[in-house]
Amino acid sequence: MAKLHYEDIEVGEVRDLGSYRAPEDELMAFAERYDPQPIHVSEAAARESIHDGIIASGWYTASVCMRLLVDGFLNDAASMGSFGLDELRWRAPVRPGDTITVRNEITDKRESESRDDRGYVENELTAHNQNGEEVVFWRATNIFGKRP
Amino acid sequence: MAKLHYEDIEVGEVRDLGSYRAPEDELMAFAERYDPQPIHVSEAAARESIHDGIIASGWYTASVCMRLLVDGFLNDAASMGSFGLDELRWRAPVRPGDTITVRNEITDKRESESRDDRGYVENELTAHNQNGEEVVFWRATNIFGKRP
Repeated sequence: MAKLHYEDIEVGEVRDLGSYRAPEDELMAFAERYDPQPIHVSEAAARESIHDGIIASGWYTASVCMRLLVDGFLNDAASMGSFGLDELRWRAPVRPGDTITVRNEITDKRESESRDDRGYVENELTAHNQNGEEVVFWRATNIFGKRP
Repeated sequence: MAKLHYEDIEVGEVRDLGSYRAPEDELMAFAERYDPQPIHVSEAAARESIHDGIIASGWYTASVCMRLLVDGFLNDAASMGSFGLDELRWRAPVRPGDTITVRNEITDKRESESRDDRGYVENELTAHNQNGEEVVFWRATNIFGKRP
């Protein structure tokens, strides 16, 4: 299977990575395990909050975005991981049943100076809900292998 | 129950948030759902990679850190959420069975200029593995309610 290598990835490319519906049971199960704040796990507490109902953990929303990024890009590429994000923003709450649509744009790339088998690709991910509101933004540097 | 409010949180405070052991089944179940890259979900593929075995999704590791932050700090405070992170770094891989120990330091705070019921608290989270290696770092701004 031909994979995308560092040389194949071009600055300015935009990938539409599809959508993911966030079911209430999955959204709340994630929060119960990793982010059990009342606003994420208690219907009663959430209803009394400024959000007037359960909202997703930001880490759940980010994880959903990652799933779409992996399925629609990274698993088709010679991906070697990431050092991290320079920015991660939760712009608006995600609620049970929302559908998140994700896109990714390549914003810069450079060869590694110390290792000749790889390069670094800067990219931005944005996620919108079904009403067109931006809910997540991140800027990342990912590592891709060069062609053998 | 007395909660910590914005006024109670002081710059320079360090909180030791305890430890979390990352069992292989949980670590891999997370990756299968949210980050199914071969290095996270396939023993065979992972063994042939530069990491010589399964490593955790960075989002799993971040979620584990969040759980410790919630249990040891945010659920004792008048936490109102977060706009996001200015930096998120995966410094070293986390492997099945690793124990992650997390601490949080308050680095800055300022009152909201537009809303008199809240303030913004900058903080840094660091996570180390059982060998003392730093595995995760993030810098965040969290929102806390002022005293009523």
